Amino acid sequence: MKIDILTLFPNMFDGVLQSSILKKAQENHVFSYQTHDFRTYADNKHNKVDDYPYGGGAGMVLMPQPIFAAVASIQQSTEKSPRVILMCPQGERFTQKKAEELAEEEHIIFICGHYEGYDERIREHLVTDEISIGDFVLTGGELGAMVVIDSVVRLLPEGLGNEISAKEDSFSTGLLEHPHYTRPAEFKGYEVPEVLRSGHHGKIEEWRKKESLRRTFLRRPDLLESYVLSKEERAWLEEIKQEEKNQ
Amino acid sequence: MKIDILTLFPNMFDGVLQSSILKKAQENHVFSYQTHDFRTYADNKHNKVDDYPYGGGAGMVLMPQPIFAAVASIQQSTEKSPRVILMCPQGERFTQKKAEELAEEEHIIFICGHYEGYDERIREHLVTDEISIGDFVLTGGELGAMVVIDSVVRLLPEGLGNEISAKEDSFSTGLLEHPHYTRPAEFKGYEVPEVLRSGHHGKIEEWRKKESLRRTFLRRPDLLESYVLSKEERAWLEEIKQEEKNQ
Repeated sequence: MKIDILTLFPNMFDGVLQSSILKKAQENHVFSYQTHDFRTYADNKHNKVDDYPYGGGAGMVLMPQPIFAAVASIQQSTEKSPRVILMCPQGERFTQKKAEELAEEEHIIFICGHYEGYDERIREHLVTDEISIGDFVLTGGELGAMVVIDSVVRLLPEGLGNEISAKEDSFSTGLLEHPHYTRPAEFKGYEVPEVLRSGHHGKIEEWRKKESLRRTFLRRPDLLESYVLSKEERAWLEEIKQEEKNQ
Repeated sequence: MKIDILTLFPNMFDGVLQSSILKKAQENHVFSYQTHDFRTYADNKHNKVDDYPYGGGAGMVLMPQPIFAAVASIQQSTEKSPRVILMCPQGERFTQKKAEELAEEEHIIFICGHYEGYDERIREHLVTDEISIGDFVLTGGELGAMVVIDSVVRLLPEGLGNEISAKEDSFSTGLLEHPHYTRPAEFKGYEVPEVLRSGHHGKIEEWRKKESLRRTFLRRPDLLESYVLSKEERAWLEEIKQEEKNQ
């Protein structure tokens, strides 16, 4: 996968994209990325990228010209049409499903604004997707782009390398993960549940499924609305409700 | 505000936290941060921080000892009890409201795991908050911690510095922002709406409020459920529904 990032702050990316799994994924040719300071594409004397909003008001607005020019320049060197993603609070909420969709692409361009609005013509006539990572305000789109890149690259074939075992991640099963415990069996007086040390695989499996259900019920009941419970899980859920009421 | 970050990848942070507004905020003594590689707190010979899960299964689990020791060491040098935040997919969904709550704190410790589970005793007996930035799977908690830090620091007094005007951000009004336009008035044949160039402040204000409502209706109708519409807005919303139906 080829990733191009339009940003006024290219230095923000290397620390994240050159560490850990993302670094290995590049060494293994799973993906490559390049940052582009779109200021260099401004066709005015002072390399200005923003201007006052029509209609007045506080804040500056990113002009369409430098962004259109930067995207055009990147597209010149590619045959297929890349996805062009605008990171913004008004965008579609990013989810694991969207990550899976983007993992099918060969080439993605991210546009990252920085504490300014985008001229509406960028949204309407240049981008293919607008993405928001959540209902909170960030200084710019850079962190959001890194979040999307991280979640997409780990879905690519060999994106996770060999050292990490495929796990039943939260969200991939539709429920939150069950609790985990490791050594020591007792730490500061807090013990690992007996059942996990029993060696009884059937009971361990049952405990994990039930605790996964309990955690989802207590923390994210909204996830249960779109989850189809088995007969066994329905019975556990009733038990859980009783147990939590008696606590 | 003082921020401590427990991570196995301290190099991930500087690119983001030493750029732009976050850099300026440190120069202005709005906040300071320090990363701590919790591997150095492991009390075993090989500085091991993880081990196999009790009960078997794939994946490794972060042991409680190094994390408890790192937090204890940081707490030694502070009088008040800091917030101790675990970044994890099972946590409370991060929102602007949570950012506002955290902006009241003097000292926050972030615990960032990396593609491994946390021993449950860390959740139960050490942390004050578990936070998830969204329903997607990331390689580690580091990007999430940066997202939280960015959104919290910009809420601190003088966190945004003087150069950026306070804006009506999305989410702070309860609706998505209206479209923005800047120079040129025509770009590649796409024009700025007439009303914004009219100089008629009343009409501009009305257009912006209505388009803010339209965007929210089309993209995030869920936000309207908790938004109290004025009489004027109720009338606009009816107009918008008709206009969109006729498109």
